[in-house]
Amino acid sequence: MTTLRLPAFDPATLPEHRGSGYPEPFRSRMGDRVKRRLGEACGLTRFGINLVTLGPGGQSALRHWHTLEDEFVYVLSGEIVLITDGGEQVLGPGMCAGYPAGSRDAHHFVNRHRDPAVYLEIGNRTPGDVAFYPDDDLMWGEDEKGEFAAHKDGRRY
Amino acid sequence: MTTLRLPAFDPATLPEHRGSGYPEPFRSRMGDRVKRRLGEACGLTRFGINLVTLGPGGQSALRHWHTLEDEFVYVLSGEIVLITDGGEQVLGPGMCAGYPAGSRDAHHFVNRHRDPAVYLEIGNRTPGDVAFYPDDDLMWGEDEKGEFAAHKDGRRY
Repeated sequence: MTTLRLPAFDPATLPEHRGSGYPEPFRSRMGDRVKRRLGEACGLTRFGINLVTLGPGGQSALRHWHTLEDEFVYVLSGEIVLITDGGEQVLGPGMCAGYPAGSRDAHHFVNRHRDPAVYLEIGNRTPGDVAFYPDDDLMWGEDEKGEFAAHKDGRRY
Repeated sequence: MTTLRLPAFDPATLPEHRGSGYPEPFRSRMGDRVKRRLGEACGLTRFGINLVTLGPGGQSALRHWHTLEDEFVYVLSGEIVLITDGGEQVLGPGMCAGYPAGSRDAHHFVNRHRDPAVYLEIGNRTPGDVAFYPDDDLMWGEDEKGEFAAHKDGRRY
């Protein structure tokens, strides 16, 4: 197959993004999580779409829900555990899950398998969206300086 | 694997949607095209995400571009030909393409292979979005009765 040119591309040609915006002790929980930003690579702005490789022991995010963002995940390979208010479910390749904006059923993926898992994550971009973390002492806020991470009582991290 | 429950699900459990809203002679060109509506299945409204199986000879759509909709496609299996203003490219599994809202580079997929191709298609939902079809005598309009399909000179199909 010859080299693709935009608007088509091979995700393997994109840079890998590691790390997380969470403060510690939350950041480390994400483990070995690598994202390739597919939507940005072709100039999309209305929604984001990432190709994520989640290493053994890693997490997609802290368990959370969004006020204004629909989210969707599609598993490409490996095996992940979806955790929601309703408990745990194991998802393999070809399985998916979606979380409507404003649904308070907090969710995340964890990888308890010995192999990496690969999935697509998609979410619309809407100004004013807020995320809540029922299991953790974390809130995101916004003041005149921009976004901040705080304890639930307001003390900044 | 046990049966999944929402917000997780197996796309194979969803109904198949065939057919197209295009008038003839365009509708028949789509060929054997089956869509499963993944986003709707879990209550998403901000964007749509479909799992599409495109049979040999089929097309994803007429070649088009959108004023207000970002679109993205990710190939899961098979081989498709992406056609844009820049010509043709062959995409296999794991390859993708994205079309920013307002980019006038009209695009579609055609399946020239002997096997079906399977891909995910994603697009945000925005009121007032319009699509244009540079290769075909078709326009979508909207009047007080709703959407209509017309020739480019305004005569209704």
